[in-house]
Amino acid sequence: MALSVEKTASGREYKVKDLSQADFGRLELELAEVEMPGLMACRAEFGPSQPFKGARISGSLHMTIQTAVLIETLTALGAEVRWCSCNIFSTQDHAAAAIARDSAAVFAWKGETLEEYWWCTERCLDWGAGGGPDLIVGVSEETTTGVKRLYQMQESGTLLFPAINVNDSVTKSKFDNLYGCRHSLPDGLMRATDVMIAGKVAVVCGYGDVGKGCAAALKQAGARVIVTEIDPICALQALMEGIQILTLEDVVSDADIFVTTTGNKDIIMVDHMRKMKNNAIVCNIGHFDNEIDMNGLETYPGVKRITIKPQTDRWVFPETNTGIIVLAEGRLMNLGCATGHPSFVMSCSFTNQVIAQLELWKEKATGKYEKKVYVLPKHLDEKVAALHLGKLGARLTKLTKAQSEYISIPVDGPYKPAAYRY
Amino acid sequence: MALSVEKTASGREYKVKDLSQADFGRLELELAEVEMPGLMACRAEFGPSQPFKGARISGSLHMTIQTAVLIETLTALGAEVRWCSCNIFSTQDHAAAAIARDSAAVFAWKGETLEEYWWCTERCLDWGAGGGPDLIVGVSEETTTGVKRLYQMQESGTLLFPAINVNDSVTKSKFDNLYGCRHSLPDGLMRATDVMIAGKVAVVCGYGDVGKGCAAALKQAGARVIVTEIDPICALQALMEGIQILTLEDVVSDADIFVTTTGNKDIIMVDHMRKMKNNAIVCNIGHFDNEIDMNGLETYPGVKRITIKPQTDRWVFPETNTGIIVLAEGRLMNLGCATGHPSFVMSCSFTNQVIAQLELWKEKATGKYEKKVYVLPKHLDEKVAALHLGKLGARLTKLTKAQSEYISIPVDGPYKPAAYRY
Amino acid sequence: MALSVEKTASGREYKVKDLSQADFGRLELELAEVEMPGLMACRAEFGPSQPFKGARISGSLHMTIQTAVLIETLTALGAEVRWCSCNIFSTQDHAAAAIARDSAAVFAWKGETLEEYWWCTERCLDWGAGGGPDLIVGVSEETTTGVKRLYQMQESGTLLFPAINVNDSVTKSKFDNLYGCRHSLPDGLMRATDVMIAGKVAVVCGYGDVGKGCAAALKQAGARVIVTEIDPICALQALMEGIQILTLEDVVSDADIFVTTTGNKDIIMVDHMRKMKNNAIVCNIGHFDNEIDMNGLETYPGVKRITIKPQTDRWVFPETNTGIIVLAEGRLMNLGCATGHPSFVMSCSFTNQVIAQLELWKEKATGKYEKKVYVLPKHLDEKVAALHLGKLGARLTKLTKAQSEYISIPVDGPYKPAAYRY
Amino acid sequence: MALSVEKTASGREYKVKDLSQADFGRLELELAEVEMPGLMACRAEFGPSQPFKGARISGSLHMTIQTAVLIETLTALGAEVRWCSCNIFSTQDHAAAAIARDSAAVFAWKGETLEEYWWCTERCLDWGAGGGPDLIVGVSEETTTGVKRLYQMQESGTLLFPAINVNDSVTKSKFDNLYGCRHSLPDGLMRATDVMIAGKVAVVCGYGDVGKGCAAALKQAGARVIVTEIDPICALQALMEGIQILTLEDVVSDADIFVTTTGNKDIIMVDHMRKMKNNAIVCNIGHFDNEIDMNGLETYPGVKRITIKPQTDRWVFPETNTGIIVLAEGRLMNLGCATGHPSFVMSCSFTNQVIAQLELWKEKATGKYEKKVYVLPKHLDEKVAALHLGKLGARLTKLTKAQSEYISIPVDGPYKPAAYRY
Repeated sequence: MALSVEKTASGREYKVKDLSQADFGRLELELAEVEMPGLMACRAEFGPSQPFKGARISGSLHMTIQTAVLIETLTALGAEVRWCSCNIFSTQDHAAAAIARDSAAVFAWKGETLEEYWWCTERCLDWGAGGGPDLIVGVSEETTTGVKRLYQMQESGTLLFPAINVNDSVTKSKFDNLYGCRHSLPDGLMRATDVMIAGKVAVVCGYGDVGKGCAAALKQAGARVIVTEIDPICALQALMEGIQILTLEDVVSDADIFVTTTGNKDIIMVDHMRKMKNNAIVCNIGHFDNEIDMNGLETYPGVKRITIKPQTDRWVFPETNTGIIVLAEGRLMNLGCATGHPSFVMSCSFTNQVIAQLELWKEKATGKYEKKVYVLPKHLDEKVAALHLGKLGARLTKLTKAQSEYISIPVDGPYKPAAYRY
Repeated sequence: MALSVEKTASGREYKVKDLSQADFGRLELELAEVEMPGLMACRAEFGPSQPFKGARISGSLHMTIQTAVLIETLTALGAEVRWCSCNIFSTQDHAAAAIARDSAAVFAWKGETLEEYWWCTERCLDWGAGGGPDLIVGVSEETTTGVKRLYQMQESGTLLFPAINVNDSVTKSKFDNLYGCRHSLPDGLMRATDVMIAGKVAVVCGYGDVGKGCAAALKQAGARVIVTEIDPICALQALMEGIQILTLEDVVSDADIFVTTTGNKDIIMVDHMRKMKNNAIVCNIGHFDNEIDMNGLETYPGVKRITIKPQTDRWVFPETNTGIIVLAEGRLMNLGCATGHPSFVMSCSFTNQVIAQLELWKEKATGKYEKKVYVLPKHLDEKVAALHLGKLGARLTKLTKAQSEYISIPVDGPYKPAAYRY
Repeated sequence: MALSVEKTASGREYKVKDLSQADFGRLELELAEVEMPGLMACRAEFGPSQPFKGARISGSLHMTIQTAVLIETLTALGAEVRWCSCNIFSTQDHAAAAIARDSAAVFAWKGETLEEYWWCTERCLDWGAGGGPDLIVGVSEETTTGVKRLYQMQESGTLLFPAINVNDSVTKSKFDNLYGCRHSLPDGLMRATDVMIAGKVAVVCGYGDVGKGCAAALKQAGARVIVTEIDPICALQALMEGIQILTLEDVVSDADIFVTTTGNKDIIMVDHMRKMKNNAIVCNIGHFDNEIDMNGLETYPGVKRITIKPQTDRWVFPETNTGIIVLAEGRLMNLGCATGHPSFVMSCSFTNQVIAQLELWKEKATGKYEKKVYVLPKHLDEKVAALHLGKLGARLTKLTKAQSEYISIPVDGPYKPAAYRY
Repeated sequence: MALSVEKTASGREYKVKDLSQADFGRLELELAEVEMPGLMACRAEFGPSQPFKGARISGSLHMTIQTAVLIETLTALGAEVRWCSCNIFSTQDHAAAAIARDSAAVFAWKGETLEEYWWCTERCLDWGAGGGPDLIVGVSEETTTGVKRLYQMQESGTLLFPAINVNDSVTKSKFDNLYGCRHSLPDGLMRATDVMIAGKVAVVCGYGDVGKGCAAALKQAGARVIVTEIDPICALQALMEGIQILTLEDVVSDADIFVTTTGNKDIIMVDHMRKMKNNAIVCNIGHFDNEIDMNGLETYPGVKRITIKPQTDRWVFPETNTGIIVLAEGRLMNLGCATGHPSFVMSCSFTNQVIAQLELWKEKATGKYEKKVYVLPKHLDEKVAALHLGKLGARLTKLTKAQSEYISIPVDGPYKPAAYRY
């Protein structure tokens, strides 16, 4: 695409694939709102007081329908927003169009080049002569990988602002990472390959929250799942669920589907891929494309790439003339090949985001937060959950006063100690 | 589309959406071949002797990638083939294009009007001056609904030719209907609506093989499933799986997702739909659109239809201004909203088809088959299964001679009496 | 025990372990009645007319609490009953005591010798000078193995009376065999060995209805299940559930638990057992002790048997000094080590029995039944199911007249053709 | 029992039900050792150096077979041990007999009165003139309830010694509480009532680790599970698994099985019990009998208690003449009605215990530990897990040096931050 900023009639900047998809995006946005009760509750609770009045928020996060509901929650609370996607494949173009037309400055499209990606990111941060953003969505960070980087910066003294670790809210990591992936992994596999999962041997590398969700989905769909792990505790958890723990080398020639969920690099190397069965599917549900050795694959002498359709490539090795199917070029396959996590679970994650942004903004001048990484207090985490119960018809039990005293827990919570694992 | 027959360079007739999608179709066909070991084994076993030499086969069956592999198996065995789709929404245009270009006369595209549908069907049966087809795929019938009609014709004496009931092969009804739907129901739901299934209340109308597959899929994805049934035996099966049995009236206002699987009519009426929650999803995985009262919905005074995207409509009732989401206009949602059953399970069904067609053709002049409905003998059913085990790495046990005598079962099968239920 | 018949105060013959357990048996009988709605419905429907008035019924069937409710249903309908157990380990002594004291002539105790077993069987058939029984429970036969024998007798012309194959009622084979075993297999394993099933590798030999129930139970408890099969269709079913199909030889040294469900002989031989891991558990949920090579084990040179507790033996091989745990001496472990199938599912099976016995008795002089094997008609099978729905809170849907006509199925059933597989 | 201490030939004190059961206990102990690789690894690693030489250890913990292996691990490491049970119903008498005869001073039997219970506890703490114990097993506390008390004592300054919170080791709370209960809840239900779980409605009060295990077990056995919760996060977790969240009042008249897992009091009151269905089963898998209102039940005017068998009582209300089944008098049903958690998962818990005791003993004079509650460091938690992988055939993956640096995690762990939730 030509890298030039466009403007709406009202003068707001944007760059998206096709603004005419805005109506379609709006329709899906309206469906998503019904599925995102936490965000809608934020609009109802905080909208009237406009707490973000005057705040400039820049966000770099997959520009999907769900993110669009987040953005419009921020604007409904008074913020001015600029946005880009944090991944070259994760934008849904109709979502971007709807936001660009109606709500915020968006610079994102599906299938950016790296050059385009960085141009979009710059646009997102560039608030013109008046300086940069007041808040950065992503400093209320919500990925395991991103949080790790923030803590490293904190330790090395290079963290330049207070940050809230939203990833470690229970209502984020134990829901989005687990149940989100349980939903979106098979979705991505089906849309990309139409392959029957039942009867297949599937290898999941890593058994953290994401790996647990992926393994559960594959098992339930009728695959025989094998997990690779470095951590003996997670390994023992998998075993208790009837899942075999082996090394990748043990199974590389026998499995039909490989999924990486580790957040580490060099998990599936080209040397593994060479030994796989014909048409074995290789994909990564984590963020970075070095989890699968894409570089090794692309530079393998004589290898041939056949694009079945966007984000679904067959790579054929010259020695055997057999091939493997790589999804989304080794990047996060659930957003590259499908539409990512569904609205309901993202509502949990994004409600944490809104609450974190509100807190950072409210306390921006009070010194309450130093240049450190914080987690949200338990009672807010519980509140996020509570906002999502009504939609599912749940009826909570109330502690009596006597019970509350007996177990020394306040009637209105928080109900668990900080270290509780859920 | 203009209803005029087109011709390939070699003079073969066709009418498809876009012949230029043939390359894309061919790539997916090649992937599917690896997943369809039964059909490929037929090519290897029967191809050399060309048993269909001289046979004209007309087929009316969803024109998908999997059907394309079936068609090319028939042509690989010597047949000349003409094809149409049996449903207005079920064609995959790239599959049709590849077949039209390379293998057979195809008349099919996604989104036919009824007029177009019948024009295509006529073209499929029209072999020119030389008369009609020798064989009809579909007379080796493979749906529960279709088989019922054949038996009715047999009883009333209106069946004009011998027919083989492929649907009641175990390797068809207990695999395609059950495991196929377990795969394709959530696939259709996800592609059409991106809705999170976990946490939702889902109602499955009917607990036959298709209903069992749908209920299993929804349960595994984290929904709370409720089944409606008329048959006390099927109802008791659902209960043993922890699934509640209620009537539609009991739950119509509480559920989030409704799926019909009955093969009957008038299951979900417009009066039910009016009482549903906002954005409840209503869909049918069976063949005909009278399972859901589409007519009642379309003619409801003041109702408003908002097409989110093709095959995903929101219908808004005037009294409440709330709406429901109807998939694929009430027709089979797995083919309308997704790509239908995956290749591997269709390979089981279609290998039955090929074997049935071979048998009908071989015996066409011998009088072995009267104008009745037949099922394939058990040993062929077992053979179909056996052809699919290697792909999944299975190793069967062999009976010893002593064991064979002890239980009076031949070492090479058939292993079960005809009435065995699996 | 001294093999002498005893008599109650009222003069009825019996021989049980300990008549003083009758009160305990009665209490458990009363609990079971609440769980057996089918049998209780038979008492309510048929009791008043005393259809078995004058009928002498001999029964040979595991003398459990559930069978006791069956016996008292027969007597409530007017029959005179004599009973023995069909297995040396399957009697529950308190059940036998209650029946002996209150209702019928019982000859059965847990742990009979073979000599005692046959003495009991003779007593059961010996109605004194007046001749033999009018009806034999078991001629309405309810095991896969037993039914096979009846058909063999029919074919060879050696069947001396009409018999009803109750086993192939859907409400028997698809419930008792499947869900009964799903319940009682882990129950037997736990009571006998207290072993943790989660994390273990379990081999199930055979994937018929019993094998399906066993495999499901083990999988759900967290074991990794491997199935051995001779039948490619059943094998493919297992694969679709994510279960690996291998031969016993492939896994004999790796697995922790072995269960036979085949009804065949020579499944696990002593040569297999020698190669197993230390303390591997070996058991049979089928009827006969030749499914596991008990003879080969007992006569293995130098083998040592250590009885942990009744029906739980550790057999130590001299070469390795490692041992295996054999349950119930290779006989049906769910009745030998636990209490067999629970009341609710047995109510389905036994209601079929009562209906079959009623039919045989009613038609004894009409010639309706020849010396052949019959199955119950579909509408009675559906009736059995219907009698069990209320207890579980189910609400069936009723066909409308229009629907009934559309699918050509009577409003009140039968709802399925005879060959339907459920 | 007469409350007098007895002595073995070697002069060691004890009081058990029946010393002649020692052989039986020893056989089961030997089976358990094979299932407890963590404890056996401790014997191998630490036994030679006799680290507990001179240590007097008193333990109050369910005197089961598994605990017996723990006790003999402590003695194998050099300790002198005295033991009692922490619950009146939880002793396995053959385990107590084997330990009493062979290894340690035991004062415990199944079915103690409260008076007997306290006598046993005193004997356990009474080391004669030389004073009390050096270590108390239970100060390396391993229940959620107990740990809460320790923290309360720490806060109020009444904690008299350093304590280690073993409960919050991941290899305890996420294994014993979760997978242990998943195993032992159905075991207890089956042994106590033989009830069919499939098809029933089961209410689980509380969805912590224990509740999660119970709900999973009931669901897998085919029950329809409903959970009651006070905590919105745990409630949302249940919903994501397809489990309905209601209050006890909503379902009290409809459910068949009730299980309390809360650790709180007054969960199921007599007023609830009065409204339950006939023969509803009421049980508690938590420690204290005030979770179910046993006092209210026992003092209910006109209520009648019918003991079916020990630990299984039917309570009949006078108004309705219907009854409920209460297990283990409202105390922990898995130990009262069955044999508690299986050896393998207890090996995880008890290996934590041994490591904690070793640490407390080693550091007793160094001042490393103040009068506070500590948790074991992550690397020991991971070690416990690692000791249990070999038994299950698992093969761990090793981080490369490059990977270790990339994610800043040592090659040999610990692999997770302290707050990680697993």
